Amino acid sequence: MASKPIVTLDSSLVHRLPESSPTLFEAKKRKNLTFEAIAKEVGRDEVAVAALFYGQAQASPDDIKKLSQVLDVPAERLESQLAGIPDRGRTMDMPPREPLIYRLYEIVQNYGYAYKAVLNEKFGDGIMSAISFSTKVEKETDEKGDWAVITLRGKWLPYSRF
Amino acid sequence: MASKPIVTLDSSLVHRLPESSPTLFEAKKRKNLTFEAIAKEVGRDEVAVAALFYGQAQASPDDIKKLSQVLDVPAERLESQLAGIPDRGRTMDMPPREPLIYRLYEIVQNYGYAYKAVLNEKFGDGIMSAISFSTKVEKETDEKGDWAVITLRGKWLPYSRF
Amino acid sequence: MASKPIVTLDSSLVHRLPESSPTLFEAKKRKNLTFEAIAKEVGRDEVAVAALFYGQAQASPDDIKKLSQVLDVPAERLESQLAGIPDRGRTMDMPPREPLIYRLYEIVQNYGYAYKAVLNEKFGDGIMSAISFSTKVEKETDEKGDWAVITLRGKWLPYSRF
Amino acid sequence: MASKPIVTLDSSLVHRLPESSPTLFEAKKRKNLTFEAIAKEVGRDEVAVAALFYGQAQASPDDIKKLSQVLDVPAERLESQLAGIPDRGRTMDMPPREPLIYRLYEIVQNYGYAYKAVLNEKFGDGIMSAISFSTKVEKETDEKGDWAVITLRGKWLPYSRF
Amino acid sequence: MASKPIVTLDSSLVHRLPESSPTLFEAKKRKNLTFEAIAKEVGRDEVAVAALFYGQAQASPDDIKKLSQVLDVPAERLESQLAGIPDRGRTMDMPPREPLIYRLYEIVQNYGYAYKAVLNEKFGDGIMSAISFSTKVEKETDEKGDWAVITLRGKWLPYSRF
Amino acid sequence: MASKPIVTLDSSLVHRLPESSPTLFEAKKRKNLTFEAIAKEVGRDEVAVAALFYGQAQASPDDIKKLSQVLDVPAERLESQLAGIPDRGRTMDMPPREPLIYRLYEIVQNYGYAYKAVLNEKFGDGIMSAISFSTKVEKETDEKGDWAVITLRGKWLPYSRF
Amino acid sequence: MASKPIVTLDSSLVHRLPESSPTLFEAKKRKNLTFEAIAKEVGRDEVAVAALFYGQAQASPDDIKKLSQVLDVPAERLESQLAGIPDRGRTMDMPPREPLIYRLYEIVQNYGYAYKAVLNEKFGDGIMSAISFSTKVEKETDEKGDWAVITLRGKWLPYSRF
Amino acid sequence: MASKPIVTLDSSLVHRLPESSPTLFEAKKRKNLTFEAIAKEVGRDEVAVAALFYGQAQASPDDIKKLSQVLDVPAERLESQLAGIPDRGRTMDMPPREPLIYRLYEIVQNYGYAYKAVLNEKFGDGIMSAISFSTKVEKETDEKGDWAVITLRGKWLPYSRF
Amino acid sequence: MASKPIVTLDSSLVHRLPESSPTLFEAKKRKNLTFEAIAKEVGRDEVAVAALFYGQAQASPDDIKKLSQVLDVPAERLESQLAGIPDRGRTMDMPPREPLIYRLYEIVQNYGYAYKAVLNEKFGDGIMSAISFSTKVEKETDEKGDWAVITLRGKWLPYSRF
Amino acid sequence: MASKPIVTLDSSLVHRLPESSPTLFEAKKRKNLTFEAIAKEVGRDEVAVAALFYGQAQASPDDIKKLSQVLDVPAERLESQLAGIPDRGRTMDMPPREPLIYRLYEIVQNYGYAYKAVLNEKFGDGIMSAISFSTKVEKETDEKGDWAVITLRGKWLPYSRF
Repeated sequence: MASKPIVTLDSSLVHRLPESSPTLFEAKKRKNLTFEAIAKEVGRDEVAVAALFYGQAQASPDDIKKLSQVLDVPAERLESQLAGIPDRGRTMDMPPREPLIYRLYEIVQNYGYAYKAVLNEKFGDGIMSAISFSTKVEKETDEKGDWAVITLRGKWLPYSRF
Repeated sequence: MASKPIVTLDSSLVHRLPESSPTLFEAKKRKNLTFEAIAKEVGRDEVAVAALFYGQAQASPDDIKKLSQVLDVPAERLESQLAGIPDRGRTMDMPPREPLIYRLYEIVQNYGYAYKAVLNEKFGDGIMSAISFSTKVEKETDEKGDWAVITLRGKWLPYSRF
Repeated sequence: MASKPIVTLDSSLVHRLPESSPTLFEAKKRKNLTFEAIAKEVGRDEVAVAALFYGQAQASPDDIKKLSQVLDVPAERLESQLAGIPDRGRTMDMPPREPLIYRLYEIVQNYGYAYKAVLNEKFGDGIMSAISFSTKVEKETDEKGDWAVITLRGKWLPYSRF
Repeated sequence: MASKPIVTLDSSLVHRLPESSPTLFEAKKRKNLTFEAIAKEVGRDEVAVAALFYGQAQASPDDIKKLSQVLDVPAERLESQLAGIPDRGRTMDMPPREPLIYRLYEIVQNYGYAYKAVLNEKFGDGIMSAISFSTKVEKETDEKGDWAVITLRGKWLPYSRF
Repeated sequence: MASKPIVTLDSSLVHRLPESSPTLFEAKKRKNLTFEAIAKEVGRDEVAVAALFYGQAQASPDDIKKLSQVLDVPAERLESQLAGIPDRGRTMDMPPREPLIYRLYEIVQNYGYAYKAVLNEKFGDGIMSAISFSTKVEKETDEKGDWAVITLRGKWLPYSRF
Repeated sequence: MASKPIVTLDSSLVHRLPESSPTLFEAKKRKNLTFEAIAKEVGRDEVAVAALFYGQAQASPDDIKKLSQVLDVPAERLESQLAGIPDRGRTMDMPPREPLIYRLYEIVQNYGYAYKAVLNEKFGDGIMSAISFSTKVEKETDEKGDWAVITLRGKWLPYSRF
Repeated sequence: MASKPIVTLDSSLVHRLPESSPTLFEAKKRKNLTFEAIAKEVGRDEVAVAALFYGQAQASPDDIKKLSQVLDVPAERLESQLAGIPDRGRTMDMPPREPLIYRLYEIVQNYGYAYKAVLNEKFGDGIMSAISFSTKVEKETDEKGDWAVITLRGKWLPYSRF
Repeated sequence: MASKPIVTLDSSLVHRLPESSPTLFEAKKRKNLTFEAIAKEVGRDEVAVAALFYGQAQASPDDIKKLSQVLDVPAERLESQLAGIPDRGRTMDMPPREPLIYRLYEIVQNYGYAYKAVLNEKFGDGIMSAISFSTKVEKETDEKGDWAVITLRGKWLPYSRF
Repeated sequence: MASKPIVTLDSSLVHRLPESSPTLFEAKKRKNLTFEAIAKEVGRDEVAVAALFYGQAQASPDDIKKLSQVLDVPAERLESQLAGIPDRGRTMDMPPREPLIYRLYEIVQNYGYAYKAVLNEKFGDGIMSAISFSTKVEKETDEKGDWAVITLRGKWLPYSRF
Repeated sequence: MASKPIVTLDSSLVHRLPESSPTLFEAKKRKNLTFEAIAKEVGRDEVAVAALFYGQAQASPDDIKKLSQVLDVPAERLESQLAGIPDRGRTMDMPPREPLIYRLYEIVQNYGYAYKAVLNEKFGDGIMSAISFSTKVEKETDEKGDWAVITLRGKWLPYSRF
């Protein structure tokens, strides 16, 4: 059976990420911490923390202080590297080539219209926000094995009438 | 405020769908039924039923019988048109141009690596199956407004070692 | 000097549009009405009405009643064809090949990061909604000639913290 | 609530920008200045100044002098790096992956034909120039929250008859 | 040696063109007229007339009257089919696969930056308009053979300063 | 009004160009020379010289000698860097994102079939060569402003019959 | 549990297939035959027969005779429709959107270089032919469930030395 | 006849691979070992080992120990570089340009629907897993020459009913 | 062994071809003629005749007369359908999916720079014309089997110096 | 008239080539040798040698010895850099932007189906191998000028029947 190592940063991905990413991942590796452990310290969801590591979520001043403590990185360095506002969406090419991420893409491809139809009947004309949005990952186990459960929760935004 | 009509089939989409799709959608419109109502009769989730309408899920013989009843379409016609096994994934081009579906795609684009990182730390090397998979859509309301909640639940498949 | 005819529907575009589009455009041509004139009757902005004609905006029951009157099309026909919820974004390929629309695309391409920078400094981390959104087109004339002014107004959505 | 830091330059974007961009952004960060503040000193609109930072607008000799003063960068260095004429449009791939910029792209995708129709009826056959063009960003606040307002103003250019 | 037939419309192109195109091309073929001959009657350049046949240029009321006469097509039919404003740019995919048109594309690909450099040094920062624009095709013959000469003439538009 | 600086090389373009390009552009900047001035010395058209600077045209031994003189670069260095035969066409992605170059691309996109039709009627079945080819840029001024005139002159090549 | 119906032809795929495909699939459906059953009659592998149904393999005169018998279709009709030589590869877009076929594509994407490395070490510089090639599908069952086994067998072709 | 050298790493591929890849390939070259030889020591299939070298398969702690021994690389270095979980699929662009790998892609392109049809008739609606999956390469020789045999063996996953 | 039927037209290709193509191919099938046989009657090379059938080569008045005779099609019908000048290059998408045509594409992909290098050393800076061009296909047989020999012969065009 | 320099390596291409390429091209430049001269020494065709320089053909031990002699490069260095098996096809993007190579691509695009038709009628269902393949370039001169003649010779591979 394969082991469950903590996640590190693939060197061939570095050029697509902000300079904070190698700083954060190297410290995580050095301290041998999971995202779950870091998230507990920071007080945010572990998906949000992982997104922050990949430059896809913003760090508040308080996040930076806590990350500095848990990761043992000087606060000034983190402050400087995390000062900006994320420039999201450039970590990967689409369609995703990574099999795990591709499965999520395939779900959108196959069920996209079904989601739209059911959402439109429940809410009317509009969208589920990806900004006023939170998400989480859970693990369930039953007699058939392990199950990953991803929850997406977004504000419903009706189209303005003008 | 915009009304909440039942979902019908855009005529410009018909050529991308199996012949069962216009049959089912026309009957749905004629009977003025939501997917929720049809799903209750068929005994499946409403996302699964919508996926079936778009040719993205298979109908069992029992589904066909119930759809025939609730939609008032001759069973033989449905049997013939739903006889095959779905040829999935061709309803739309990617990236999706429909704003609602695009938001889901954007979630994959922005959080893809974060999901992978958290899932790998929780489960090891593998993927969340999109086949041994179920999904549902729920509506929540609080003082800030309405929220759409989409749950994705897939079997965890570890990579085989060989 | 070129004349200013009312806008009609290019036949080679019909297959990309919902069935309501040729109905609406043919009536518009028959009645020789501008979008401005129709918008005045319907009580909506002319861009919204044009979007509705191209299947990019939803019609309320009241819109349908008024469109039926101003365009002289039986209400039942419009009701049936406009019953659905728009399946947006499929009228054209991107990048746009139409020079007028390409200019708008070029503005996004050239000024995209400048808009992001200025908006982020004014509002923080988030987006300008394209859903809680309205837009209008105005004409100004000065000694140098005519000027088109397009205004985009969208709700600011900050990223949720989770 | 997320803070509103000044905008800095993502290191993974540097290779797509002229050499003036890191010079300008580093000075901006060092001096902790917003684009609004810099624009006031330079006497140009803040979107124009941000575009100049990203290599999408030309700096006049007077702009260079003022930028040198407000940013505390030797004038000769700015003169040398800003001597050229912008090579626009290469900062990002299209479709934009950044959610904020994508929303603007989506507006073009969804409302493109509606803009064309309304503009053609108001002005005849032609385009709104993206060159004889100015734009600005404003913030409005009402009981529903904050609104971003982007104004695009371009010279109307009728097609020449030949 | 290959003959010089008048140009007709390839049937596989019809679906990409407005309905006026087959009307015009069929009449041209029936009357066996070159674009040069039609242009002389209409009083416009032959490239403009060919563009009009492919739906890439607008017809004035006077153009329609003259086309009706020279092509022997009822004026009402032309008026109805040419009433709209061109929806340009959709006749072909890019890169062009037609060898003649590809050569023009290759000229842009190879000399694009050279044109930009020379134009910028002659005119400053701006563009050559493709709207306030005219073009013509001429034939020259010398001892080495025949030469095609295409002239592009566009208004110079400097970038607005804002 | 924007100034008319000499054209320099955008550093983000260097990796797409042969090693001769930075050599030539740096010398041009140092000597503060326009392409027009260099062309006069070299005895070639300024578009050809600009193309040579971008690695899109071949330098003869005599060109190299003259470039060495006018630019004050050791002849051996130029000989070594310009020894090869150009590997054309890789300076930019297509469609061009630079607005000036895009306008030329748009002309091909919109008028491509019109050019083909007129050329075929004038010359028969064949192409205008982009190799046995010359081009020039001129500036005209009238009461309406400045006009850029680009002339393309190519040998007509009829298809061989075999 | 889902049933195992015989495979039929999705109507939205017909326009990508030769005219023999609907003929063959309709007869297969009418006779309610699996590919396994047809293959047994024809004396070829079932993958080859399925490929033939999709226009991806050639039918010999003897195949046509046997197909005519087993499917109850007049031999002349099959002879006429299967007379040509397959124009392969156009049944689907790549990357495949169908999840089953995508998994095969993903195997090539992930293991492509590993296959190349192992094959090169076993055979030297060359390729495994996809023409001098056969393939088969088998089903295995063990305590963990069902397994699909696909075998690809191709002639090794070393690169010619010239 | 071409020789059969051991496979080494093309330097132009390094930037697409994790940092473990050059470490492993350099050691393999230094020790002059085939994948077959390494696989024997590690106790895994040679395709799996080659995939591991290209960053497409995970190394267990035991694999790392054995690789360290057979390749004479310090275990700590391998442990550090192979600590992560593979980020698969980025070694090449699709369609593959390498002729050997392209042939595998072509097999998917040509036989994709045939595989789907036969698998669906044998197993019902589902997919062959590319995760619960193993593969191997064998060499066969007969009077016609050498044959490469690739076997793909994946768990059959039926679509969940929900 | 596979038979060698005459080539017919795949019905799914018809919409990409001029209207002359089905006329010619149907007559060819009815008369059961190879391209070799037709070419002998017409007095052109068989590749040229096949190109003419696919709308990729022009027919002279004499060709039309001879085709009418050998194919038994009324001359007026052929004259009308072959009157135009070919609109080349639209028969297929690139990269080609047809394996035979793909092999030719692969030769260009793999040997493209080698051809350029050798041609440049033999002829200087220029191209081999694809217009002043002829090609032929020959069959050779030796003890190793059959060999296809394709010869491409094009005029060398040196770049003009300007 | 343009001179005929020996071909050197464009520095902007180096990152797409194996490390042997700059080694070989630099030695070729230093020794001022044409591919024809090198080929004579090595005993292979000059296209094969050029392909070897671009990493598109394998070097035998004997080739390496001869290359070492003729180019004056230490054999060990060449042995080390040429040890691997070529990873073909990555030197350029397709469609080729280089005009000379594009002409070859255009020949495939325009004559692809004609080649297929003629080859299928001469040989049956199959392909011309690009692996069991050789090619050469020749120069012919007649009163009309110079002609380049490229010969492609590939083994005919019939599709296996299974």
